[in-house]
Amino acid sequence: MHHSRLCALLIDCNGPDVDKAAGFWAEALGRAIDPDHPGTRGNYRMLETPPDEPIVQIQRVSHESRVHIDIETDDISAEVLRLERLGATVVSRLERWVVMQAPTGQRFCVVRVQRPGFPKNANRWD
Amino acid sequence: MHHSRLCALLIDCNGPDVDKAAGFWAEALGRAIDPDHPGTRGNYRMLETPPDEPIVQIQRVSHESRVHIDIETDDISAEVLRLERLGATVVSRLERWVVMQAPTGQRFCVVRVQRPGFPKNANRWD
Repeated sequence: MHHSRLCALLIDCNGPDVDKAAGFWAEALGRAIDPDHPGTRGNYRMLETPPDEPIVQIQRVSHESRVHIDIETDDISAEVLRLERLGATVVSRLERWVVMQAPTGQRFCVVRVQRPGFPKNANRWD
Repeated sequence: MHHSRLCALLIDCNGPDVDKAAGFWAEALGRAIDPDHPGTRGNYRMLETPPDEPIVQIQRVSHESRVHIDIETDDISAEVLRLERLGATVVSRLERWVVMQAPTGQRFCVVRVQRPGFPKNANRWD
């Protein structure tokens, strides 16, 4: 038995200045950059998140700019296997998360629990 | 004075069968397709949304598959102007919403209020 939940929107930005990119999205969405969050580091900037809203994180990337979804879970292996059975494929297994591709073409990540309140609104898979 | 809020994730799917596409995402996110929602029509399929989560809607598109954000507002014109001042540009003005492009490259839409609970967690712009 494990749980999973839509966790975050990652705004992947191809450009040299992740602070400038995050600055636009902070103003656009009305959520300040959280400089003290562990999700603000290196190529990542975390926006402040109301407790009952999904996380929005800005990432500097070398591929084209896009948006992707993260799914959080208390059992990454089980969740990846579940998603593979639905038709998703593994793109790469990293130390702390797994990049997958949906049968409809979008890439997304399966990550450890990150949003407060888990497993509220999460799915239970037996 | 107007308000705006991150409203929805649109999962844009390039493929002939929007029901099959929506079926994958419904299973992946654990949210059933809502056949009675007005957001389920034509090329659109709406997933059931817990009241304190963003809307997830699947859309059949002719461009490449991707994910985009919708921002809901009680004043589309004022919100578009605000976002233009931040550096976003208008791609197309439709009858009921406006397609914009962020300076970081992602397209997104400015739409009328759609999520329950508005303006909870919304931003107020004076």
